[in-house]
Amino acid sequence: MASQNSFRIEYDTFGELKVPTDKYYGAQTVRSTMNFKIGGPTERMPIPVIKAFGILKRAAAEVNQDYGLDPKIASAIMKAADEVAEGKLNDHFPLVVWQTGSGTQTNMNVNEVISNRAIEMLGGELGSKKPVHPNDHVNKSQSSNDTFPTAMHIAAAVEVHEVLLPGLQKLHDALSAKSKEFAQVIKIGRTHTQDAVPLTLGQEFSGYVQQVHYAMARIKAAMPRIYELAAGGTAVGTGLNTRIGFAEKVAAKVAALTGLPFVTAPNKFEALAAHDALVELSGAMNTTACSLMKIANDIRFLGSGPRSGLGELILPENEPGSSIMPGKVNPTQCEAMTMVAAQVMGNHVAVTVGGSNGHFELNVFKPMMIKNVLHSARLLGDASVSFTENCVVGIQANTERINKLMNESLMLVTALNPHIGYDKAAKIAKTAHKKGSTLKETAIELGYLTAEQFDEWVKPKDMLGPK
Amino acid sequence: MASQNSFRIEYDTFGELKVPTDKYYGAQTVRSTMNFKIGGPTERMPIPVIKAFGILKRAAAEVNQDYGLDPKIASAIMKAADEVAEGKLNDHFPLVVWQTGSGTQTNMNVNEVISNRAIEMLGGELGSKKPVHPNDHVNKSQSSNDTFPTAMHIAAAVEVHEVLLPGLQKLHDALSAKSKEFAQVIKIGRTHTQDAVPLTLGQEFSGYVQQVHYAMARIKAAMPRIYELAAGGTAVGTGLNTRIGFAEKVAAKVAALTGLPFVTAPNKFEALAAHDALVELSGAMNTTACSLMKIANDIRFLGSGPRSGLGELILPENEPGSSIMPGKVNPTQCEAMTMVAAQVMGNHVAVTVGGSNGHFELNVFKPMMIKNVLHSARLLGDASVSFTENCVVGIQANTERINKLMNESLMLVTALNPHIGYDKAAKIAKTAHKKGSTLKETAIELGYLTAEQFDEWVKPKDMLGPK
Amino acid sequence: MASQNSFRIEYDTFGELKVPTDKYYGAQTVRSTMNFKIGGPTERMPIPVIKAFGILKRAAAEVNQDYGLDPKIASAIMKAADEVAEGKLNDHFPLVVWQTGSGTQTNMNVNEVISNRAIEMLGGELGSKKPVHPNDHVNKSQSSNDTFPTAMHIAAAVEVHEVLLPGLQKLHDALSAKSKEFAQVIKIGRTHTQDAVPLTLGQEFSGYVQQVHYAMARIKAAMPRIYELAAGGTAVGTGLNTRIGFAEKVAAKVAALTGLPFVTAPNKFEALAAHDALVELSGAMNTTACSLMKIANDIRFLGSGPRSGLGELILPENEPGSSIMPGKVNPTQCEAMTMVAAQVMGNHVAVTVGGSNGHFELNVFKPMMIKNVLHSARLLGDASVSFTENCVVGIQANTERINKLMNESLMLVTALNPHIGYDKAAKIAKTAHKKGSTLKETAIELGYLTAEQFDEWVKPKDMLGPK
Amino acid sequence: MASQNSFRIEYDTFGELKVPTDKYYGAQTVRSTMNFKIGGPTERMPIPVIKAFGILKRAAAEVNQDYGLDPKIASAIMKAADEVAEGKLNDHFPLVVWQTGSGTQTNMNVNEVISNRAIEMLGGELGSKKPVHPNDHVNKSQSSNDTFPTAMHIAAAVEVHEVLLPGLQKLHDALSAKSKEFAQVIKIGRTHTQDAVPLTLGQEFSGYVQQVHYAMARIKAAMPRIYELAAGGTAVGTGLNTRIGFAEKVAAKVAALTGLPFVTAPNKFEALAAHDALVELSGAMNTTACSLMKIANDIRFLGSGPRSGLGELILPENEPGSSIMPGKVNPTQCEAMTMVAAQVMGNHVAVTVGGSNGHFELNVFKPMMIKNVLHSARLLGDASVSFTENCVVGIQANTERINKLMNESLMLVTALNPHIGYDKAAKIAKTAHKKGSTLKETAIELGYLTAEQFDEWVKPKDMLGPK
Repeated sequence: MASQNSFRIEYDTFGELKVPTDKYYGAQTVRSTMNFKIGGPTERMPIPVIKAFGILKRAAAEVNQDYGLDPKIASAIMKAADEVAEGKLNDHFPLVVWQTGSGTQTNMNVNEVISNRAIEMLGGELGSKKPVHPNDHVNKSQSSNDTFPTAMHIAAAVEVHEVLLPGLQKLHDALSAKSKEFAQVIKIGRTHTQDAVPLTLGQEFSGYVQQVHYAMARIKAAMPRIYELAAGGTAVGTGLNTRIGFAEKVAAKVAALTGLPFVTAPNKFEALAAHDALVELSGAMNTTACSLMKIANDIRFLGSGPRSGLGELILPENEPGSSIMPGKVNPTQCEAMTMVAAQVMGNHVAVTVGGSNGHFELNVFKPMMIKNVLHSARLLGDASVSFTENCVVGIQANTERINKLMNESLMLVTALNPHIGYDKAAKIAKTAHKKGSTLKETAIELGYLTAEQFDEWVKPKDMLGPK
Repeated sequence: MASQNSFRIEYDTFGELKVPTDKYYGAQTVRSTMNFKIGGPTERMPIPVIKAFGILKRAAAEVNQDYGLDPKIASAIMKAADEVAEGKLNDHFPLVVWQTGSGTQTNMNVNEVISNRAIEMLGGELGSKKPVHPNDHVNKSQSSNDTFPTAMHIAAAVEVHEVLLPGLQKLHDALSAKSKEFAQVIKIGRTHTQDAVPLTLGQEFSGYVQQVHYAMARIKAAMPRIYELAAGGTAVGTGLNTRIGFAEKVAAKVAALTGLPFVTAPNKFEALAAHDALVELSGAMNTTACSLMKIANDIRFLGSGPRSGLGELILPENEPGSSIMPGKVNPTQCEAMTMVAAQVMGNHVAVTVGGSNGHFELNVFKPMMIKNVLHSARLLGDASVSFTENCVVGIQANTERINKLMNESLMLVTALNPHIGYDKAAKIAKTAHKKGSTLKETAIELGYLTAEQFDEWVKPKDMLGPK
Repeated sequence: MASQNSFRIEYDTFGELKVPTDKYYGAQTVRSTMNFKIGGPTERMPIPVIKAFGILKRAAAEVNQDYGLDPKIASAIMKAADEVAEGKLNDHFPLVVWQTGSGTQTNMNVNEVISNRAIEMLGGELGSKKPVHPNDHVNKSQSSNDTFPTAMHIAAAVEVHEVLLPGLQKLHDALSAKSKEFAQVIKIGRTHTQDAVPLTLGQEFSGYVQQVHYAMARIKAAMPRIYELAAGGTAVGTGLNTRIGFAEKVAAKVAALTGLPFVTAPNKFEALAAHDALVELSGAMNTTACSLMKIANDIRFLGSGPRSGLGELILPENEPGSSIMPGKVNPTQCEAMTMVAAQVMGNHVAVTVGGSNGHFELNVFKPMMIKNVLHSARLLGDASVSFTENCVVGIQANTERINKLMNESLMLVTALNPHIGYDKAAKIAKTAHKKGSTLKETAIELGYLTAEQFDEWVKPKDMLGPK
Repeated sequence: MASQNSFRIEYDTFGELKVPTDKYYGAQTVRSTMNFKIGGPTERMPIPVIKAFGILKRAAAEVNQDYGLDPKIASAIMKAADEVAEGKLNDHFPLVVWQTGSGTQTNMNVNEVISNRAIEMLGGELGSKKPVHPNDHVNKSQSSNDTFPTAMHIAAAVEVHEVLLPGLQKLHDALSAKSKEFAQVIKIGRTHTQDAVPLTLGQEFSGYVQQVHYAMARIKAAMPRIYELAAGGTAVGTGLNTRIGFAEKVAAKVAALTGLPFVTAPNKFEALAAHDALVELSGAMNTTACSLMKIANDIRFLGSGPRSGLGELILPENEPGSSIMPGKVNPTQCEAMTMVAAQVMGNHVAVTVGGSNGHFELNVFKPMMIKNVLHSARLLGDASVSFTENCVVGIQANTERINKLMNESLMLVTALNPHIGYDKAAKIAKTAHKKGSTLKETAIELGYLTAEQFDEWVKPKDMLGPK
């Protein structure tokens, strides 16, 4: 390929445009870069969408061949599309998210890249549209209006399966191991952030395990509607210019290529005009964000200290804390996780606003919606892995501290209720609180019971479940 | 009962308080009204929560009787609790949502009302706590920390089943009937809000039907976790002070009383400390709000006019429009619906923020969370009924207008592509657009085809599906 | 007035309707109750909106009299409007928020009530529209489209001035007093929730004072645009059917009646079609919610305990904590405040969604928007008062605990840097952390300095500011 | 510099790490890349934050020199910092947003880069920390806890002034020009999306002008608190280890370097622990997003067509519409703008959640918050420019269509009220509506007036303002 300063001339219906010689994209892509200078390089269409388009275009070419497309052309499209799907041509997709709300320009970017790459493979001239035309061949039986939502669903499903769910599973397993490891560590409970009756640290972690377990269940529950593909709906959902069976076959090919159970959407009008399925998936991730924020908050507070915090957990020290404050362990993984959680909540609102504003046959917030869904999935997945590897697996119980707090707790007095009655128990607790003394000392001093009785009756390990 | 100006004296551990003679509540309720003067009467704990508490307290009394509670006391509690469940004592629940975040005061309000009503039934003195003690008997084996979340789940499930799902079903059925009614009405499609290729009005409505169908599916998919009850977890989730089997039996009783498949939560720590299940349900309603906003927006735009709008639908006229502008039909039901949708989106964020901020063994955003969930469910359910009855069922297709727009559409030229090629077709369309003439006139004028050929080839009804 | 079961017949252009004899409202109000059965009584149009309408209608009648309205009629309207403004007729406004998005029915409800009450004053027959017609006289020179936004702005401004700002001022002053009271209490700082270098408790509270000070500044900064009134714009903003000067005079009258600096909006098209000013005010309250959540969170964590929390603050005990856990002070006011904060954040999203969805000459999310703005203002104002009176003013510093934590802190080692160098200081801190010993012991043991030197160099009170 | 495969060894207190030879950053930066593999390259700390750090470090070096820092070292730091500020070293900042919530690692990244670049300038060895130490010299009198929020405020202020406000001003001016251009174009108004009384297209656009005018006013109103810098607060806000006057001098230097009125924050505790000022600014941008969504929605609906929409505006055609639907102009700039608006609303929620979750002396959602604030500012600014240049300036009024719709409108009947009375006017309108005839025809047919009278009385241009 030639240098970046070299150009070829391509045309669209608006006239000629200079295309960098070393790029496969064409005139419509260049025109979009001129018309949508919004946000800069970080705002480019997410790579998972590009890869998903590669999968879709490959599947469509196969099916088009079944319906009569010249096998030579179809085969070249398939090869080029595979390269897109494999991420080999990522540099050829310069367009930003903030373009046409249908993602039309990205669909054309894909069509142009595949067309030119296929032409190149077949020995043709880039930009000649011969023998592989971006519209007539690569986009055959397709419209931006059905391909973009199809790519959205493929991208979301793949990201969920490759990043989000594995990340959550890893976190789940690590929390579960800790829950078992801490099964015998009895500690004070806290409600309203105040001292309460005891539980085990393992029980406390079991709540987190359950939250992450349900997070995965929620995300999986949203997937059936993500597996429904719009392909075959073309411009308005009717399927104009496709063949009977095209939609079903494309979905089956995509399923085969990805190993995920994609099917054709039962109603293409809904699939183009609404993106409720993405709002739903975003909602599941929003709930997940709530779960993870709760867990990360607990862990940082339980690990607070080293001297003046709760200090029940010892968190792994991963990097220098302050240059002037030795011994300072900052719960940095918790902080990254809670920032991610806040971001996901914000992304969810963006997705919601976009999802609610579709009109007639087409929702035109598509690129924004998928950007946010993919952002949330990636962040939650990555942060779960980071949080697990750099924090959860290394958490230790500070048993000395835990025991001290638990044994000093006035809430253990609850165990005396059945033996000396609520009123006397309350008297003990209140007196101990006032004097700063222990329950045992106070109870004996007040003459309500003996040291032996206290030891017999006040056993935290008997307070951990129903009887 | 005595007049409102008459009081009796009741006590809590902080001292004596004046309780209105004609109210069943007691000292802790009065104290809460003094400490939480926030928001006024509209901010009271929603009645569905109070009724759910009635169900729960009745179930707990039954189970407590199985475990040894005096049948006379248990029976009186059950009767009083039934009255609460039936809404007969609504006036006795003055507390606002903005109280302790665990809902403790509402739990005590319920305990006090049931206790006093049971005492009254048994011929005792109100406020004496004899023979039915609000804590020892009504609250037996319970804590605010597990009863309030239990009541939240019961209330949410009941509201979903009694208001939300029936409302959506009604809307679904009405839209479905319209979709069938309009099956033969061919109209212009609109993408990017711009003219596009045709579809039938029935197809357009079928997208709405699908959206509402999925809305119900999404809500139902969230219910399994709502059916899980915290009861039996008591203060921190361990179940301290309950008996083995209590949790399961209470859930079974609640299931029997409500006819809904409630079960005991598999992990009580999660059930007290997190309310992810409510965030999830709220998320399903948030998605529903997006769906309904889309549908209502479409209908008001398609019904816009009478002269200068799109004018494809004729909406029922339900009330006088403007006093100076006759013939003005305002799409008021669409407006109510879209306002509801916006509210539900807002409520969802409140629920999300609350759900993410639980700490340790207890989330203390409980009353706020359930208020918003119930608000969303009620509004969506009611608005669906109102929208259906006062708008959807009366929608008529303005077929004259629809035909006119469809036949004038330049997009029909698409049908000529296979016959005369894209370039000539484009020439026809562009010329017609420029001259403001029809496609047919222009096509003939340009000499590309005959009138007969045009009529043969350009048939909107052939453009409604794949071939 | 007659009993509720008695009716009179009134008419609107759709036919006759039964109106309760004891109500001043008329046919259009009744029709709205039939068409919008959404949400129940708690969803009624907020009373501040009704009162604001009373003010507006009074002002408009005065100005209309200047422009020629019969003084007898004008005078009766003014008297009736005053009763509405004073809240004397609240029972006559049954309509819910979920109605026409322009608030037309509430404007008509007001017109009908004022008309009928004025007719009654003048000895006429209710429902006769003579001699005071709801449209021709009460609504003269007005449209729902300009009166409802005018009432929204009046209601918001009044609520801000009567509830929100006084509540915040009260909180500010109480926090400021505590900041001064705690000026000498040196305590450990916490960053990342971890131990850090010291500051005074007064300094810590000064941050809260600043936050609330700015909260008030932010809200005040939003008011200029709230003071702009749409009145005079009538149906689409042009002012059709008003007289030159009407808009300015009405705004001046409203200013005189309320004592607030209302002016006529410089652009009535914006004033009807967009409600950015309410989104802005809601945004200021959203920021306030963030501030208050931070403060309330800090206070509950600093007051956590009594034994196993941070325990630096002693919070007032306002109500019985747990029936089984004596000594338990739940930070219930913090919980109410943080729930309010979450609600305000949610309300803000609802307002935002509504504010973004106006079309052409009219935003039709008006009732929903003002409901949420008023809700937020009331909740923040009330919660600030409750939090102040029942929590802040009673907060005590637990100086014993504070001193203990501060003196045990390893972070004080920072003060040794200039004397023995960073490396030796770090050695001391790390050794002390490992052994669980004090800095002083460790420093001496390591032979780096003497006890006297330690006491001389490590003075927390010298670490509280720049030098 | 050497190739990317070559490394040098650097150390932090945790041990040695390989640093790429061609990078100026050091061990702590490398460690962060290992510990926070979250989100990938698009998630890097925004460049405006890096540049702001360059400005701050330069200012701090100058002030430190005043307080005694070796001028040779200070001078080298200044030069290196200038390079950071100018964006020359952007490739040396690989860290992502999802790191420590205080931004500590980015502060250290900056310190390391400046240190090494300064060392290089002075002929030293990279990584030797001599003669310019990243902590002792570059970070002198600073902490991450005050530098990061300082950089946040500088970055936000610069982005607002360089991108956001200029973009909005450009849009404002273009809309204002259109408002003047369209001053004489009388058109039908639309309320509730339905036909209403007329206004001029210039008046309609004047509402947009006002909205954008206020958007700028709102953003400017938030700036005073953005101009307050935390620098000088160091670790917890006390200013420990700084000199009296340092804070003020640094702010003055930053003001001089940027030309913006920065001052030192009056309360450093608030400045570290809360980021209400960013929530406030985000709120102003959220309101702006509402304004822009309204404007863009109006324009796309008014420009809908070409045959079956409202068709009052002719929007510039910027790129090929559909390949099969000629004449199709998609309002792509409106779509980009409304997607941006939705994103800004989402970002605002993320900022709000982060802003509400600070604890004690430090808010640890800093990187996430500033990322979202900068994202919103950039998107709004860029999209305003794109929307202006590619859409607004080219908008034409379709006067033929506008006149047709206006003259056909039944709402003009309103003008007859004073002449023939409301009832007869209503009769005319309803009859015309029913028959599909014109007002004039109908009025004459009904015998209510003559053709001359109609022409005399029904003049849209007399309906455009008060009389």
